[in-house]
Amino acid sequence: MTLKNDRLLRALRRESVDCTPVWIMRQAGRYLPEYRETRTKAGDFLTLCKTPELACEVTLQPLRRFELDAAILFSDILTIPDAMGLGLTLNEGVGPRFSKPLRAAADVEKLPEIDVSSDLAYVTDAVKMIRRELDGAVPLIGFSGSPWTLATYMVEGGGSKDFRLVKGMMHDQPRVAHSLLQKNTDAVVNYLKAQAAAGVQSLMLFDTWGGVLSTPDYVDFSLSYMAQIVEALKADEVSRDIPITLFTKGGGQWLEKIADTGCDAVGLDWTTPLSDAYQRIGDRVALQGNMDPTVLYASDTKVQTEATRILHEMGTANGHIFNLGHGIHPQIEPARVKTLVDTVHSVSKEIRGN
Amino acid sequence: MTLKNDRLLRALRRESVDCTPVWIMRQAGRYLPEYRETRTKAGDFLTLCKTPELACEVTLQPLRRFELDAAILFSDILTIPDAMGLGLTLNEGVGPRFSKPLRAAADVEKLPEIDVSSDLAYVTDAVKMIRRELDGAVPLIGFSGSPWTLATYMVEGGGSKDFRLVKGMMHDQPRVAHSLLQKNTDAVVNYLKAQAAAGVQSLMLFDTWGGVLSTPDYVDFSLSYMAQIVEALKADEVSRDIPITLFTKGGGQWLEKIADTGCDAVGLDWTTPLSDAYQRIGDRVALQGNMDPTVLYASDTKVQTEATRILHEMGTANGHIFNLGHGIHPQIEPARVKTLVDTVHSVSKEIRGN
Repeated sequence: MTLKNDRLLRALRRESVDCTPVWIMRQAGRYLPEYRETRTKAGDFLTLCKTPELACEVTLQPLRRFELDAAILFSDILTIPDAMGLGLTLNEGVGPRFSKPLRAAADVEKLPEIDVSSDLAYVTDAVKMIRRELDGAVPLIGFSGSPWTLATYMVEGGGSKDFRLVKGMMHDQPRVAHSLLQKNTDAVVNYLKAQAAAGVQSLMLFDTWGGVLSTPDYVDFSLSYMAQIVEALKADEVSRDIPITLFTKGGGQWLEKIADTGCDAVGLDWTTPLSDAYQRIGDRVALQGNMDPTVLYASDTKVQTEATRILHEMGTANGHIFNLGHGIHPQIEPARVKTLVDTVHSVSKEIRGN
Repeated sequence: MTLKNDRLLRALRRESVDCTPVWIMRQAGRYLPEYRETRTKAGDFLTLCKTPELACEVTLQPLRRFELDAAILFSDILTIPDAMGLGLTLNEGVGPRFSKPLRAAADVEKLPEIDVSSDLAYVTDAVKMIRRELDGAVPLIGFSGSPWTLATYMVEGGGSKDFRLVKGMMHDQPRVAHSLLQKNTDAVVNYLKAQAAAGVQSLMLFDTWGGVLSTPDYVDFSLSYMAQIVEALKADEVSRDIPITLFTKGGGQWLEKIADTGCDAVGLDWTTPLSDAYQRIGDRVALQGNMDPTVLYASDTKVQTEATRILHEMGTANGHIFNLGHGIHPQIEPARVKTLVDTVHSVSKEIRGN
């Protein structure tokens, strides 16, 4: 099927575009009243994720409001450990919790292999339904948490400020940590292949917590596994042509290493100037980012100024996908997002003389 | 007075040393049973800070256990906003809270100028007492929070995950934010001058939250004020020869800019390889850091391996002060710290062939 709007895919391939494509991490989420309504209907967050009709509905909601250049599958990064039987609960305010966290070598050893086609069928069903509903309007992005990021939640049993338990395992029982990371990697590869087979047109790995590691630990315990995933996807008939974006929050010092994995695009948080990133790796990969999400708390004028500043950092260079440097906060006014999306399109057209 | 151990000051001046000096951020703190005992005696944390005898006692405690090459004044980074009347409470588990946070332009306007010599006399009294007790054994480090870091707590009213309010002020009312930062800067300058006059032999600015800013915002709202402080201290008779260290957590991408302030040393968190930092700015400043504090949860062997790895990154180059990349966690076994300190001394001696 030909896409009516293929800006995202063109930018990911570093081809010319009429204007810069834009989507927003967590664009389907709590800042939208219609999302909150659907979520209330679902009862809880996991039910929302696990009911393809509802996941499809919330995926499409932001596209009805804003001229976004992509849809992203509504799901959670913790679907894999949930399928592994760790007992996930997701509550607003509290954050994710696993009732059966992995604390010892034996826990990791006993971790079951998942069968994506049955255990995570609700995800691939949602992908198929969304593709049908989108009807080629914009591409659909699929995703997973990175093996390291999944491991942090699986070992800590939830979010953490100091990552005491998972880093303790990494430092003291590196073999156990590597065994867990390999199991996560195998599951992520199968998961993303299944998403590709179901119809996603772009893939993204969220390495939300890679940035809490030292450089050698990042390379050994996070990046090397993401590199394995990229390699496996590029070696597979179905997924080989689907561009993949790696995003390590706090990974600004490691951009060259991330680009070395062979990924197609690198996500940037707001601490790295886009122009620096372009100089460092822009000849090899596309760049996604990178406005500070808190700018959306400010006035429309400030949103316009900041989006314009960022677009000028890329100028007319190819290979930029505009996004925030992290997920949108739940308290943001939807009107600010409209301002942002419209500004990105109009200013980037002007910059290109279109 | 001649110091019996001047390794720290020599390393800060990038002179040769017999072995690498080491101290630990938060070395006087909750991981030590004797600290917890003194704190219980004091009743609460603020009383501990505000009673020079007790502050002196806890400052000296870690030096009785470990062969540390420096003492650091026991105090809190929030003494300045406390003196400004914002109503500080510090409770374990909850973190700092201000009962009168700054939310509007009028709040910032009304902020009183503090008189360090009376309002913060408890700090300078503690400095004098500690110097007397140390009797030249090791140098004493004084410190302050950076203007931006102080502002985050003053506006948010406590710690924050997203810095919504202070960034909102920065984006939407930049003049108000700058006015607050200038007031903080003036207070910090007076505060550090007073610490210098009272006898501290080295100074440090903790910019704990500079790393949450975009590069242009970091330069405008955090670094430029730290640069003002460095300049003011270097222009003052009493403080001009006291080396000053700037530490922005998460500032690895901005090391050159930090060194440009004219500071004597740059603190590094654990995400930047020490060897990279040395290549980038080691010809201009000393480097302090940078072991991941979570390594101290691991075995003695791992602590030794990791400290050795970091020391080898510097090799025989001058200008390294070993430290963690962030404060020591309260759950750490004191025995691990002994292993760390002893390893730093013995391995760095070996590396130098001493």
